[in-house]
Amino acid sequence: MQKEKLLYEGKAKKLYKTDEPRVLWVEYKDDATAFNGEKKEVITGKGQLNNEISSLLFQKLEDSGINSHFLKKLSSTEQLVQETEIIPLEVVVRNIVAGSLQKRTGLKEGTVLDQAIVEFYYKDDELGDPLINNDHIRILKAAQPQEVEQLKKQALAVNETLKEHFDSCGLLLVDFKLEFGRTADKQVLLADEISPDTCRLWDKATKEKFDKDVFRFGLGSLEEGYTEILKRLGGAVHG
Amino acid sequence: MQKEKLLYEGKAKKLYKTDEPRVLWVEYKDDATAFNGEKKEVITGKGQLNNEISSLLFQKLEDSGINSHFLKKLSSTEQLVQETEIIPLEVVVRNIVAGSLQKRTGLKEGTVLDQAIVEFYYKDDELGDPLINNDHIRILKAAQPQEVEQLKKQALAVNETLKEHFDSCGLLLVDFKLEFGRTADKQVLLADEISPDTCRLWDKATKEKFDKDVFRFGLGSLEEGYTEILKRLGGAVHG
Repeated sequence: MQKEKLLYEGKAKKLYKTDEPRVLWVEYKDDATAFNGEKKEVITGKGQLNNEISSLLFQKLEDSGINSHFLKKLSSTEQLVQETEIIPLEVVVRNIVAGSLQKRTGLKEGTVLDQAIVEFYYKDDELGDPLINNDHIRILKAAQPQEVEQLKKQALAVNETLKEHFDSCGLLLVDFKLEFGRTADKQVLLADEISPDTCRLWDKATKEKFDKDVFRFGLGSLEEGYTEILKRLGGAVHG
Repeated sequence: MQKEKLLYEGKAKKLYKTDEPRVLWVEYKDDATAFNGEKKEVITGKGQLNNEISSLLFQKLEDSGINSHFLKKLSSTEQLVQETEIIPLEVVVRNIVAGSLQKRTGLKEGTVLDQAIVEFYYKDDELGDPLINNDHIRILKAAQPQEVEQLKKQALAVNETLKEHFDSCGLLLVDFKLEFGRTADKQVLLADEISPDTCRLWDKATKEKFDKDVFRFGLGSLEEGYTEILKRLGGAVHG
């Protein structure tokens, strides 16, 4: 497999074409950004940690019968994935109140929800990725109504598998963001990454935060938090 | 009927008990507020205009078979209404892009939507009345799922009647906010007011704004705009 031209560079990853049709080469970067790019830093080792964690989690989902764009880990910072047309929605699943849900509802951080909730945000940096409802999705033509139903259903299925898996590793899956794409035959497929950049993960006993909030709010070393997560997931820690 | 003790004073209205059980006495105030109370002014005549307009519109809805808490206009600034327990949701219906929908979606102001959309905001001044989705409504216990369905259905029915009525008066009903209450027997009932404080209304031909945006953005005389709406609705203009 040959890496070919750069297709896209985002905040955390680069995507390249390959010599194989519909297969992309992903490179995880060491850049950490938060608050819609307002806070920015380079953290050596972050790309590697996210690639390792994301690869393990996509593999875990596949073992549970949930498909994703993930094909193969290539190196400590690289993956092969199936090409999709990304749906411009961030699908957020929440089990415990934190972050913007705390601000939006006034519910106390740490409140355990009886039942997971799903939120859709419109992927648009200029608009600040606003929360939207199903009617907004319709007028923005971001997704078809039946796709929205599938996104919600798949996101909740991902939650069931991951919540249980993290729990068995002594971690609370507080919330997480997923992105989905459409395959060449218009099927909805889980895409992007699942990492401490996109999940809130707390220690089950102490409620210590190991995720990007460590970086967002300057709570300590992001690398240490992410390394702790990788260790608990049984991954090989480099360096 | 006797006006008794003050039950509640809001930004635009006072509510009093009466000697009749489950009947409240509403007094429309001359206070104009915008941006969650940040902009504030007293505009003589505003209470009267809103009471007249709201009474006409509730009457119009009743004639179309849509019940509300409205019982009777008492004076130029007062109404009798049925007592309800207010559901803490602002139900917004939109036909044309304006205001926060423009900011949220990036769609151009004035874009006519193929189909009306409905939004729910959580009535909480401290939180800034945030947009919420059905899952948030559930965890906030703001309304039961079947009530949410009824709110949406009733709001769209109100839209059908009002949009047509305003159209026949040369006005575009751009969007509006409704509030609902629960009656003693737990029925959902349209409540609050329907006025240029709660509706965006533009001239059909010139797109001139006659509603609270005139006050929000200092576009001219609020009183003139509201008077124009009352005139077009065939109401009696005082003083």
